[in-house]
Amino acid sequence: MSATRAYLDFNASAPLVEKAREAMLDALSMPGNPSSVHTEGREARRVLEQARKHVSRLVGGRGEDVVFTSGATEAAAMLLTPHWTMGRAPLRFSKLYVSAADHPCVLKGGRFSHNQINIIPVQSNGLIDLDALKALLAEHDQNAGLPLVAVHAVNNETGVIQPIDEIGCLAKAHGATTIFDTVQAAGRIPLDISAGYADYFILSSHKIGGPKGAGAVVGNANLMMPRALIDGGGQEKGHRAGTENLAALAGFGAAATEALENLDRVDLIARMRGRFESAVLQHVPDAVIHGREVHRVANTSFFSIPGMKAETAQIAFDLGGVALSAGSACSSGRVGPSHVLEAMGLGDEASALRVSIGHTTSEEDLALFESVLSKLATRRKSSAQAA
Amino acid sequence: MSATRAYLDFNASAPLVEKAREAMLDALSMPGNPSSVHTEGREARRVLEQARKHVSRLVGGRGEDVVFTSGATEAAAMLLTPHWTMGRAPLRFSKLYVSAADHPCVLKGGRFSHNQINIIPVQSNGLIDLDALKALLAEHDQNAGLPLVAVHAVNNETGVIQPIDEIGCLAKAHGATTIFDTVQAAGRIPLDISAGYADYFILSSHKIGGPKGAGAVVGNANLMMPRALIDGGGQEKGHRAGTENLAALAGFGAAATEALENLDRVDLIARMRGRFESAVLQHVPDAVIHGREVHRVANTSFFSIPGMKAETAQIAFDLGGVALSAGSACSSGRVGPSHVLEAMGLGDEASALRVSIGHTTSEEDLALFESVLSKLATRRKSSAQAA
Repeated sequence: MSATRAYLDFNASAPLVEKAREAMLDALSMPGNPSSVHTEGREARRVLEQARKHVSRLVGGRGEDVVFTSGATEAAAMLLTPHWTMGRAPLRFSKLYVSAADHPCVLKGGRFSHNQINIIPVQSNGLIDLDALKALLAEHDQNAGLPLVAVHAVNNETGVIQPIDEIGCLAKAHGATTIFDTVQAAGRIPLDISAGYADYFILSSHKIGGPKGAGAVVGNANLMMPRALIDGGGQEKGHRAGTENLAALAGFGAAATEALENLDRVDLIARMRGRFESAVLQHVPDAVIHGREVHRVANTSFFSIPGMKAETAQIAFDLGGVALSAGSACSSGRVGPSHVLEAMGLGDEASALRVSIGHTTSEEDLALFESVLSKLATRRKSSAQAA
Repeated sequence: MSATRAYLDFNASAPLVEKAREAMLDALSMPGNPSSVHTEGREARRVLEQARKHVSRLVGGRGEDVVFTSGATEAAAMLLTPHWTMGRAPLRFSKLYVSAADHPCVLKGGRFSHNQINIIPVQSNGLIDLDALKALLAEHDQNAGLPLVAVHAVNNETGVIQPIDEIGCLAKAHGATTIFDTVQAAGRIPLDISAGYADYFILSSHKIGGPKGAGAVVGNANLMMPRALIDGGGQEKGHRAGTENLAALAGFGAAATEALENLDRVDLIARMRGRFESAVLQHVPDAVIHGREVHRVANTSFFSIPGMKAETAQIAFDLGGVALSAGSACSSGRVGPSHVLEAMGLGDEASALRVSIGHTTSEEDLALFESVLSKLATRRKSSAQAA
């Protein structure tokens, strides 16, 4: 049977991996609240703590440095605040430095006020401008408070990999604390928080094959923590109150384990992505593949078809059975110019399609993509001739 | 086969109902992000909007007035802030009024500062002191800002039902906005937000047979909303960013539908609870059942065994196969005096056991409870005689 649908939107949400599903089913059969002291509560607690270890291993961290959240957006909201503590002593950040191509949950700056947020520009190849960051940090007034740098490790639209170790070392040389949004990096490139350039990583379950509704902050074994965003019953050592989402976190843990195992098979995905891009360039020789000149994660391709609006093409692909995206999915169905392309200096005209794949992406998916693409390309040719 | 475990801790977390499990399995097989515009995204969106309707129906609300969160604690954190808007105009609350027996996520006051939080005392029967609330609201300085009243509808430890319509009308007469934590009330007593005394209800999925990790704020068709706690991609009409937890919310919706259907069978649970309490009084004639003289939800019994520490009894019950709690579960396994009993004016000595049941509670559960209880009672008698 040939595929009737090809799902090529893993960066918006990856399909649930089987092991995550199984872990969730087990957890869903457990009635206990992980905070309860009875047998059922302790069983739930055991599942939770195991998930914490599994998630921490994906990024070279320790289970005890993981704070679970409802997702990456909450994790960012938790971290992006001027008000922190080191043990019991208060700490104050006076400026937040984010990049122009960050996800909105970072770019909007959380609980920092507008005048505390500094935007680091991005180059036309998609990389963060390190010289600009250096200049910004050199101007930082340490007397007013500490600098906090929060940037993404991998762009969700282009797949461009930022030099997070360089960014981190540069920031640390200026006394900054560093947060990396590793949502699109986890399971795609090796990550090791113990290397020292990063103080916090932000993770999302549903981008690595776990369920939606789970995320984490992984710290680098330090005592510095933001003032809790969600306070109440004292769960997560007081850093995040509310009964833990046992099933989703169990699924997150299982997906993290699988993602770690799959890291050394990432070249298979790169090869498949290469075939998608060959198809694009074969049918649309003047297509522009964004970020191609720098390092990208293996699963993502972001390309523009000159003269064709991405929204139009996306609808045509969807009608043809192919789910891909025009920009990112995070804005409640809002369709507009990509702030990532804008940050890369590409005009309002530029619109692009994103194909993002995974280990389950098949020959059939590729064939369906190519068949819709060839029809689109033919239509484009004939309308160009008519014009 | 006789039961080897009796789970009597539904108020800490209720077992997942079968329909919620099925709804979750369906949702877990959907790869799409509800914010994506392609077919898979729209399918996910449909499930999400259906869940919204199902949840709103449980409390007489409208789907469009539901904001989904990761749980009741996040919902409380979202609502408990001085900073609101009415459409685009800012609104400022200067004081928060909470009750002494509220859940910690309300009692701690969210983003209100300590000097903005006023505590409404509770009477020895567990009911909120209306005269005290009236006096507090009469003293409220409207020039400094608006009053916000946030109290629980049903106490999680005693099961005592607060007169929320009276509280709401009293508060509204003083110009207050009213939030009711209906976490332990939903599915146990009828709730109707359209009646007008309440502006917001807070709901939790896992207390009504849905999964852990989902909650909601249900508004009463008004435009007044708190400044978002979690900002980013614009989901939930900008009130709560982050990819929605599709599976958990689908399960929440299914559980809400079942809870609504079961509301008229609540007398069956009351009868079963009566049998548990008869057993308590038969084996421990001097046991004190808290809140018995006022209205309680049908599923909860909170009782003290004079001369016996609740923690000790709880461990004995657990070893005997019975999961019940000493106080509430929300404090990460912390065992200490119940702030609810303290609020009711019962001394430090008072400690109590909570039995909380549901529609699946069986004869076998009761028999196991009674067998452990009778052994405990015998031991208590002999140590009293030895003394």
